[in-house]
Amino acid sequence: MASDTELTLHPDRLFPAEQAQRKVARAIFAEIEHLPLISPHGHLDAGLFVRDEPFRDPAQLLVTSDHYVVRLLHAQGVPLADLGLAAQAEGPSANGREVWRQLCAHWGALAGTPSRLWLEHELFELCDLRQVPSPANAERTYDQLVARLAENDLRPRALYERFGLEVLTTTDSPLDDLSLHQALQDDPTWKGRLLPNFRPDAVVDPGNANFRKNLARLAEISGEDTTTYSGYLAAIHKRREAFRSAGATASDHGVPVATTERLSQREATATYARLSKGEGSPAEVEAFRGHMLDELARMAADDGMVMQLHIGVVRDYDPATAQAFGPDIGQDFPYAVEFTKTLRPLLSRYGNADGFRLVLYTVDETTFSREIGPLVSYFPSLFAGAPWWFLDAPDAMSRAFTALGETAGISKLAGFVDDTRSLFGIGARHDVARRACAAYLARLVCEHRLSEKEATKLAVGYAYDTPKRLFKL
Amino acid sequence: MASDTELTLHPDRLFPAEQAQRKVARAIFAEIEHLPLISPHGHLDAGLFVRDEPFRDPAQLLVTSDHYVVRLLHAQGVPLADLGLAAQAEGPSANGREVWRQLCAHWGALAGTPSRLWLEHELFELCDLRQVPSPANAERTYDQLVARLAENDLRPRALYERFGLEVLTTTDSPLDDLSLHQALQDDPTWKGRLLPNFRPDAVVDPGNANFRKNLARLAEISGEDTTTYSGYLAAIHKRREAFRSAGATASDHGVPVATTERLSQREATATYARLSKGEGSPAEVEAFRGHMLDELARMAADDGMVMQLHIGVVRDYDPATAQAFGPDIGQDFPYAVEFTKTLRPLLSRYGNADGFRLVLYTVDETTFSREIGPLVSYFPSLFAGAPWWFLDAPDAMSRAFTALGETAGISKLAGFVDDTRSLFGIGARHDVARRACAAYLARLVCEHRLSEKEATKLAVGYAYDTPKRLFKL
Amino acid sequence: MASDTELTLHPDRLFPAEQAQRKVARAIFAEIEHLPLISPHGHLDAGLFVRDEPFRDPAQLLVTSDHYVVRLLHAQGVPLADLGLAAQAEGPSANGREVWRQLCAHWGALAGTPSRLWLEHELFELCDLRQVPSPANAERTYDQLVARLAENDLRPRALYERFGLEVLTTTDSPLDDLSLHQALQDDPTWKGRLLPNFRPDAVVDPGNANFRKNLARLAEISGEDTTTYSGYLAAIHKRREAFRSAGATASDHGVPVATTERLSQREATATYARLSKGEGSPAEVEAFRGHMLDELARMAADDGMVMQLHIGVVRDYDPATAQAFGPDIGQDFPYAVEFTKTLRPLLSRYGNADGFRLVLYTVDETTFSREIGPLVSYFPSLFAGAPWWFLDAPDAMSRAFTALGETAGISKLAGFVDDTRSLFGIGARHDVARRACAAYLARLVCEHRLSEKEATKLAVGYAYDTPKRLFKL
Repeated sequence: MASDTELTLHPDRLFPAEQAQRKVARAIFAEIEHLPLISPHGHLDAGLFVRDEPFRDPAQLLVTSDHYVVRLLHAQGVPLADLGLAAQAEGPSANGREVWRQLCAHWGALAGTPSRLWLEHELFELCDLRQVPSPANAERTYDQLVARLAENDLRPRALYERFGLEVLTTTDSPLDDLSLHQALQDDPTWKGRLLPNFRPDAVVDPGNANFRKNLARLAEISGEDTTTYSGYLAAIHKRREAFRSAGATASDHGVPVATTERLSQREATATYARLSKGEGSPAEVEAFRGHMLDELARMAADDGMVMQLHIGVVRDYDPATAQAFGPDIGQDFPYAVEFTKTLRPLLSRYGNADGFRLVLYTVDETTFSREIGPLVSYFPSLFAGAPWWFLDAPDAMSRAFTALGETAGISKLAGFVDDTRSLFGIGARHDVARRACAAYLARLVCEHRLSEKEATKLAVGYAYDTPKRLFKL
Repeated sequence: MASDTELTLHPDRLFPAEQAQRKVARAIFAEIEHLPLISPHGHLDAGLFVRDEPFRDPAQLLVTSDHYVVRLLHAQGVPLADLGLAAQAEGPSANGREVWRQLCAHWGALAGTPSRLWLEHELFELCDLRQVPSPANAERTYDQLVARLAENDLRPRALYERFGLEVLTTTDSPLDDLSLHQALQDDPTWKGRLLPNFRPDAVVDPGNANFRKNLARLAEISGEDTTTYSGYLAAIHKRREAFRSAGATASDHGVPVATTERLSQREATATYARLSKGEGSPAEVEAFRGHMLDELARMAADDGMVMQLHIGVVRDYDPATAQAFGPDIGQDFPYAVEFTKTLRPLLSRYGNADGFRLVLYTVDETTFSREIGPLVSYFPSLFAGAPWWFLDAPDAMSRAFTALGETAGISKLAGFVDDTRSLFGIGARHDVARRACAAYLARLVCEHRLSEKEATKLAVGYAYDTPKRLFKL
Repeated sequence: MASDTELTLHPDRLFPAEQAQRKVARAIFAEIEHLPLISPHGHLDAGLFVRDEPFRDPAQLLVTSDHYVVRLLHAQGVPLADLGLAAQAEGPSANGREVWRQLCAHWGALAGTPSRLWLEHELFELCDLRQVPSPANAERTYDQLVARLAENDLRPRALYERFGLEVLTTTDSPLDDLSLHQALQDDPTWKGRLLPNFRPDAVVDPGNANFRKNLARLAEISGEDTTTYSGYLAAIHKRREAFRSAGATASDHGVPVATTERLSQREATATYARLSKGEGSPAEVEAFRGHMLDELARMAADDGMVMQLHIGVVRDYDPATAQAFGPDIGQDFPYAVEFTKTLRPLLSRYGNADGFRLVLYTVDETTFSREIGPLVSYFPSLFAGAPWWFLDAPDAMSRAFTALGETAGISKLAGFVDDTRSLFGIGARHDVARRACAAYLARLVCEHRLSEKEATKLAVGYAYDTPKRLFKL
């Protein structure tokens, strides 16, 4: 951004200032900028593509539904209700205009954050906006955006094409019947590839408030008897099969810690018997969670679904706010995590197993050089997931590339995942990640650690080849 | 420093070598270099300004009383006694000359540390020294410094003016009657602004060896009955009022961990009853400490005093040394800390409260991207404090800017605090911090993430506007 | 490396791209590049130099026996058996050729790692190879290397000379009779200096599976009665004396945590009585380990041997693999560690003791700015060890220099240790470390924090003076 009022996207953005490195970064980036996008982990609603309706309210689209932006504006003192939360209108309500004014008023506070980069990219590239949002132009820009959103080339399927998506993935509960995915597959006019991702947290975490209810629903959807441990495992197995039939190649797991101690068959059966009736101590909840992580790894080693692990955030931090405004509004906060000791049981069993794949995501970047890098630099099954949530930013990515690249080599990075709830932001996010990758590799080239040709090959691997191969897409 | 014998201050010091970034850094720095200093947290003695006497012994001033320098020279094998400790003379004793010789002998060992930068700045700018201290010139430079210190423009009040201080803050116990602050306010010849800061550790930490004695003194100074929990709270409340009357806008809290679990009224009353009589288990000490952190936050949300939290150092590490030479001699050492889980109870109660402000300081920099950055990027009440103690250095500041800037935006940094025990060093410390800020922002400008104009505005915010507004000065 | 098929070593490798810094880095490096090598910690077999036989199999030399390379190739899916493990032939077996093919096939996967830098250096400088290893040239390069290894100037003693080693250190158990070291000392044709290093883990860790057997052997080799605690201490003391007679100036200690709580004489005696009979609880094992760390520090303060501490890796991570292929194959993985609180008892006793020296090594780099840097910046006895194992890489070293240099000053870094199991790699490893040092200091020079002359002096200290003095060599 060169001016303070004219919105621009500098072609060299995020490249190092030093000219030799910049030149190499530019050259590497040119080779990956337009590669198809592989998006193996994200949080979009499959219904978006089934309905394929135009987005209508820019504030809803760019602010209210983007928990990164909600978080940053809330930190500036804007009440959540003034950001459109709790009363999430579907159309361009009077409310949308109010919310847009908040973004315009606090545009400066986003300076330096990745959200600012993504918004600039989305506004410039997709919305054709050429003015920096400001209180002075809030009304005018809001109207412009409403008009622009009505155009067909910004409807979900058009965006899928425009971004060059080759495959896009949702994150789904085993209790989801995947009917939306089915509807898409049955729709001859849909040319894309939208795959579900098996996220069984709701039925494997006995600490979940709805655990018993979820087990009942699991029985229903699977046709298995979940009152017994063996029936329960069979039900999970069946849902995995159903997901695989719908194209899923991966599962995802969100747990507080990566404990993977296996219970004996007898212990597991007895513990499940208590937990499935709403009994059991907190220690049993934790033990069973750890056991099931191993059990799911066992299934993954067997059926080949790629396992993804997200650990280490307190979700819905302030209970009162969560109750009023719901989850996923930007208040999931990280804490220090451990992989080496906790994953040891699991890795001793499946770490060298053919076909087993485990991708580790973290918001505790200290683990990149201390645990994730070392572990993925040894186990063929392990890969380092993209820096997650607060770390999904150019400087944080640069630190991750640096720590992991030296320890494990770039080929052990699972590639970028946009992990987004915002379809609009997918292009921008991959653009930033690919620039960060090019900038990192350009430094290595200029320090004579790699040839430019080799660096380019590594960049292509990171941006496309590795995630495609690793996630079996 | 260009030569090894001539002392110089390069105008571009601490700016990146790359020319484009350096040019921008220079331009940004030019806009903040001469802004008034806001110093909302430090450890000076108010008596300095009441007496306004010249400093007399350069060794006492620059070595003995600066725990950073004491620490570094001790690490080189110099006994503490040879650094003037234990026998801290007030004037230029024979001892001062000996101490100065130690600094001259070990000048090279300070290379690369911030203390070296600060000393160079102080010697060059304030003392007009133009020679690098060395064994060869130790006698001569000592004499020169003694002569220079005798001049009126280096007396405390003159330094206050010279540094462009707009407000300066001390750190004070509730047991302090603030008579020195009062004396200054009553002195018509004092033109500055020196505010106390409410630091109640001595009366809220039952682990303090003098806790009972302190409660007795608290009763005396407040006129409240501290034998009951309600009287105790009333006494603390009264002291807060007294501090606020004396101009205090902030409190400061040093605790081992950030636990903030509230006790019930009944538990608190009963626990206090035991602890105030010198009874109570270690677990009760800890529980009460956590409870009082919450209680003090409740008071802060009510009376609007800005709360500052310093956690995570073992103070007076080697007990024998502490006994012989006292506290604050450089042996407070950090350990890993936790904010996310421990602050959750407190933030769930006051995190969104109007007027509540909490500034988090750490010496565990892993928390910048993992906990402090994320939390301040959501809660309107929270701000990231300046990197503390060992992190008060240009490269460490650069890492903090990078981690916090991306996660939360620069506006959520509380600004620089010099945190110093050395009046002489205030100018140098703010100079280094402002240079580090300019260098960081210049990189973002050259990577096309910000315009230079916007970066300059952010720098002004960091250096002046934000601390002034945040600390209600 | 400029081309993808021609193997080259760029003279400016690892220097920053920015020209001013590069120029200074070059100048500093020129002053340290050819300084003699001090190698105070490593894992070579003394027998190498006794026998002085030519290496025969390049795959055994460069792959199978280098656990860094084994680890990285295994991570690419190559079975350990295909890397020559378990069947480690001594000569150029058919197997060696197969292993070499694996390296050639996966050469690209090593890009960006330090192993790649070291291998390039070894192949170019020592083996005169001028082609990048690739599947296309695997047969030819293997033959070339076999032929080259047969030449006399690549035999162990010739390499010692070639690298400019001034002293080289092995790591040895107290149960080792040091006969190989003795043989060397008795050999008039050996001109080098090879010292043992006292590593008593096997006899001070009651958790060691062979603890009882080791105590019996300790009795035998020392002539002391290890059935009593006093006899046991006498035995250890005697072995220290024997090591010192053989030239040892340092000890090394690998423990899970740095706990240093001393037991009372009575407790220690009773605990030892149980543990030495294979009894005792896990808590007693841990308590005794902590006690012995203190006891060994006491001995070190007394006899002046420099103590080295390596904590924080799970060794032989996957038990089944360890059983099949043995230890030291690249599966020692780090976890988070603590120094500040755990070392407090020990440092309160010996931290200021004359002649006591303690060097701290870590694979948890968060401790550099939080614990190791602060502690070594105060205690005269303490020094920061070189970044260990996964951190033994240019970018990780750069982060360590940055964190430690600011906090403690460069003089408190113990210098580089190659820590290698590969004699062939010693030259390359010191080359990389010296380049990283020069690059770091060049930045400080260009930021006007040091003069080039002072930086050069610091570099010489790091590369040569400090380790020589600190390790009393």
